[in-house]
Amino acid sequence: MIELDRYLAEHRELVDAELERVLAPAEGAPPRLHEAMCYAVFSGGKRIRPILTLAACEAVGGVRDRALPFACALELIHTYSLVHDDLPAMDDDDLRRGRPTVHVQFDEALAILAGDALLTEAFRVAAEGAAAVDPARTLKLIAVIARAAGAAGMVGGQVADLEAEHVVADVALVESIHRRKTTALLAAAIECGAGAGGATAAKDSALREFGQALGLAFQVADDVLDASAPSAVTGKRVGRDAEQGKATYPAVVGIDEARRIARELLCRGLGAIESFGTSAEPLRAIARFVVERAG
Amino acid sequence: MIELDRYLAEHRELVDAELERVLAPAEGAPPRLHEAMCYAVFSGGKRIRPILTLAACEAVGGVRDRALPFACALELIHTYSLVHDDLPAMDDDDLRRGRPTVHVQFDEALAILAGDALLTEAFRVAAEGAAAVDPARTLKLIAVIARAAGAAGMVGGQVADLEAEHVVADVALVESIHRRKTTALLAAAIECGAGAGGATAAKDSALREFGQALGLAFQVADDVLDASAPSAVTGKRVGRDAEQGKATYPAVVGIDEARRIARELLCRGLGAIESFGTSAEPLRAIARFVVERAG
Repeated sequence: MIELDRYLAEHRELVDAELERVLAPAEGAPPRLHEAMCYAVFSGGKRIRPILTLAACEAVGGVRDRALPFACALELIHTYSLVHDDLPAMDDDDLRRGRPTVHVQFDEALAILAGDALLTEAFRVAAEGAAAVDPARTLKLIAVIARAAGAAGMVGGQVADLEAEHVVADVALVESIHRRKTTALLAAAIECGAGAGGATAAKDSALREFGQALGLAFQVADDVLDASAPSAVTGKRVGRDAEQGKATYPAVVGIDEARRIARELLCRGLGAIESFGTSAEPLRAIARFVVERAG
Repeated sequence: MIELDRYLAEHRELVDAELERVLAPAEGAPPRLHEAMCYAVFSGGKRIRPILTLAACEAVGGVRDRALPFACALELIHTYSLVHDDLPAMDDDDLRRGRPTVHVQFDEALAILAGDALLTEAFRVAAEGAAAVDPARTLKLIAVIARAAGAAGMVGGQVADLEAEHVVADVALVESIHRRKTTALLAAAIECGAGAGGATAAKDSALREFGQALGLAFQVADDVLDASAPSAVTGKRVGRDAEQGKATYPAVVGIDEARRIARELLCRGLGAIESFGTSAEPLRAIARFVVERAG
């Protein structure tokens, strides 16, 4: 067993330092825009996605720094999606990680534009940052990220999520929303780590399976947390999903069955990378951590 | 002289066919999202940016098809920026090219998300499409696009534009806003064409100068049109900029001086590519066309 807390802290620090570097004020960027972007990015997030990218890179024996630009790009995209999801026209949330959301702290226009800028800069960071990775491979990973984040991925999932509010959802619909809204980007985080680390085709394929299972398990666990944990843990109001009539696993199968599904998915994911040896131990520990926090 | 109308129609057709191809419905993309994206993209735009990309590629003797993915990426980014700029929290426009804007035709959430998806897919198209271009060069051009569209470019310009509403602007402020909000992406369109076409360093540099001059001239001409042309020409309400207290050239220097500045910029841009010979004739004709429509 590795010391997970130390691993997470150390890798979070790496990601944060690189995010600070890539988000340094550029000439021509309005100070309020830059402030809003930084407010959103440095808001106490756990950096799960970028840490998974680094851990996947390490799991295939890759040089961790080569995965860092992709890790940052994925965190920037994750951050923009939260800023836009919180907008009044969408989930209309005023609290995120215990702080006012960006449109509350600044204003709605700036929240939209800060999100747009974060998404745009994500691709700049991926394109500019990966000097040590083969350019053709970097291009492939940029396409992986864009597909995961785009119309058939994260954005499509958010549209489907909004469409499913206050309709009677079944487990197939909830899975289909989660796979696009959350799983896609999380799986891309792992795929980018594998790609940047120079994974063999077999390891790449195993990590994709791991990513798909973990990505869904993560969101199921998140649904369980939202339905049961106090606000101090989630940083959001308790039961916000139910209040909004969101399609969630607890809503369609109950909390206990949702917990069981999350554990089953975790088990499947860990099975996919069983042969990886000790270099994958951090990846396994993170997977257990993100799923088991739902109890 | 080339027959400009035929050139524009033919190249517009090329761009439209490729946009249709890259926007084909992907598995998992919600139909309403796809519909909103297509509504925004196929709305009768002139395709000036992508045509400039193709014309710049041709001007340096490049193979036109190699520039097509970048041309499409730039048009998708331009389109997303219009969708977001029209939102109630921003310019609050209900009419664009004579049709209801996306948030009016669909709803606000879908307009935000369709914009997000168009921006994301733009980078997918650039990363996936340019198989015939050297991958390292493609990466460089993706970074050029992202910088032009990001916090120090187009998004920064929109923030500065909103901040400048109803304040007393001078010509330096208006230029600074236009350079980011419009010039940056238009200049990137030309730079991508040059890059995809394999421009020499000298031609690349000349085309950058051309792009900077034309990009600003284009927006000055647009300001003049907005202040003077009937709605049937602009597809927007007459004098919408003045109504919103926008920082424009006519507002700070008057219409006649704005026209003079646009022509001077055009002249400077054409001077930069004077040595290019007949392969640059379409580029020159487009430049004259976009500036001289303001009379």
